[in-house]
Amino acid sequence: MATELKVVKIGGNVIDNPAMLDSFLKDFASLEGPKILVHGGGKKATELSHKMGFYPQMVEGRRITTDQDIEVVTMVYAGLINKSVVAKLQKLGNNTIGLSGADGNAILASKRPAKTIDYGWVGDIEKVNSEFLKSLVEQGITPVLCAITHDGDGHLLNTNADTIASEVAVAMSTLYNTQLIYCFEKQGVLTDVNDESSVILELNESSYNSLKDEQAIHSGMIPKLDNCFNALKKNVRKVIIGSPDVLKKDYKTFTALTL
Amino acid sequence: MATELKVVKIGGNVIDNPAMLDSFLKDFASLEGPKILVHGGGKKATELSHKMGFYPQMVEGRRITTDQDIEVVTMVYAGLINKSVVAKLQKLGNNTIGLSGADGNAILASKRPAKTIDYGWVGDIEKVNSEFLKSLVEQGITPVLCAITHDGDGHLLNTNADTIASEVAVAMSTLYNTQLIYCFEKQGVLTDVNDESSVILELNESSYNSLKDEQAIHSGMIPKLDNCFNALKKNVRKVIIGSPDVLKKDYKTFTALTL
Repeated sequence: MATELKVVKIGGNVIDNPAMLDSFLKDFASLEGPKILVHGGGKKATELSHKMGFYPQMVEGRRITTDQDIEVVTMVYAGLINKSVVAKLQKLGNNTIGLSGADGNAILASKRPAKTIDYGWVGDIEKVNSEFLKSLVEQGITPVLCAITHDGDGHLLNTNADTIASEVAVAMSTLYNTQLIYCFEKQGVLTDVNDESSVILELNESSYNSLKDEQAIHSGMIPKLDNCFNALKKNVRKVIIGSPDVLKKDYKTFTALTL
Repeated sequence: MATELKVVKIGGNVIDNPAMLDSFLKDFASLEGPKILVHGGGKKATELSHKMGFYPQMVEGRRITTDQDIEVVTMVYAGLINKSVVAKLQKLGNNTIGLSGADGNAILASKRPAKTIDYGWVGDIEKVNSEFLKSLVEQGITPVLCAITHDGDGHLLNTNADTIASEVAVAMSTLYNTQLIYCFEKQGVLTDVNDESSVILELNESSYNSLKDEQAIHSGMIPKLDNCFNALKKNVRKVIIGSPDVLKKDYKTFTALTL
């Protein structure tokens, strides 16, 4: 039986809320066994852009990443957020290391080809360096990954943090019995986005497809859920979506996904 | 005989000059054997502060690091510069990892106590985690350290890059036969700051002290040189100060320091 590994992703809304972030980090630090944290960016990159005098263009929630934008997201995701999270986890007794995909060649990506939309410096993941991540985990060092990858040709690339989490979980599942946990500002997948008590406790692929057909799933959740089912198909053992509280022992309100 | 290790530091003026930086990185990538890079910050942090609408206060070339300043230097040093350098070195075939002192607890520091001057979030180095740096080097991964450390209590600290380089070299010299190389915009220690041909090729502590007494050494060089002699006294085998060209084979114009 392979060792268990947890890959936990926290979304931007958790990052933006200092009290929620601190509470999450405490729970994350208490998790026993091998683990990896992946964090999103939150609103700080956009706020910094505004201060610098330019207005990032978003298409369906994705940032068109110009030369200026890649500098800003590198500063905010790989610099400010990543290092603050690492310093806080060190305080909590977790030896952590902050990584972009360029560090140790952790995540190699390729620049998304411009089709109808040119997303600019946005990367699609090619390869997760699972042996490198394993070497850190085996030394008792927890990797903390931000949403920046590289193309091996000297360029940094803005990359969706949900996708990083699922690709990392997939790659690690050849080495560990891997669990993927998405933490965001809701209690789980809701049938009514305004009603936190409408959490779907168990969601399998066929019920997911039916709910999608009925348009009962919020459109913003669909890429996240596609990532989750993709991970399950590629041998990730368990996928959970919920609030940061899912890391607490015996907390039971979240969505568990199965095939 | 212990393995050789080179600790190379590049200054802010090299970072600020893209052509000089690229040329330096090519030479650094060609260096054989275990190595560590430490980089300064350059002007970008100050430029970013100005864009954000505040004006950092400098005392004797040192930044008074307020809450706003530590965010800016973390973004610029640990984010933008560090990750750009790592991505470029990956392109050049060097597997590198960018680190702040918080990452892997690489460098623990303490906040400088406020005396006549309160420097704010500025750190004095307590301990370099030489075993962690060794574990990376032994895996063939080159650490790239920026000028940010942490206090173990959740705070990031702005820390002089020259001091980081010398303290890292000192710590590594218990494990390796360590050489410390400072690369900056001059050819070496000059007797006449306006004359690049006035390089002192060999400088020992007694001639350094005489030149200091005669005020023949530029005041900005004194903390750097004090760091160098300190490193030599603590078993660093060799210390060199020169232009980025000192990394080129057979380049002979630089200052070699001896006790």
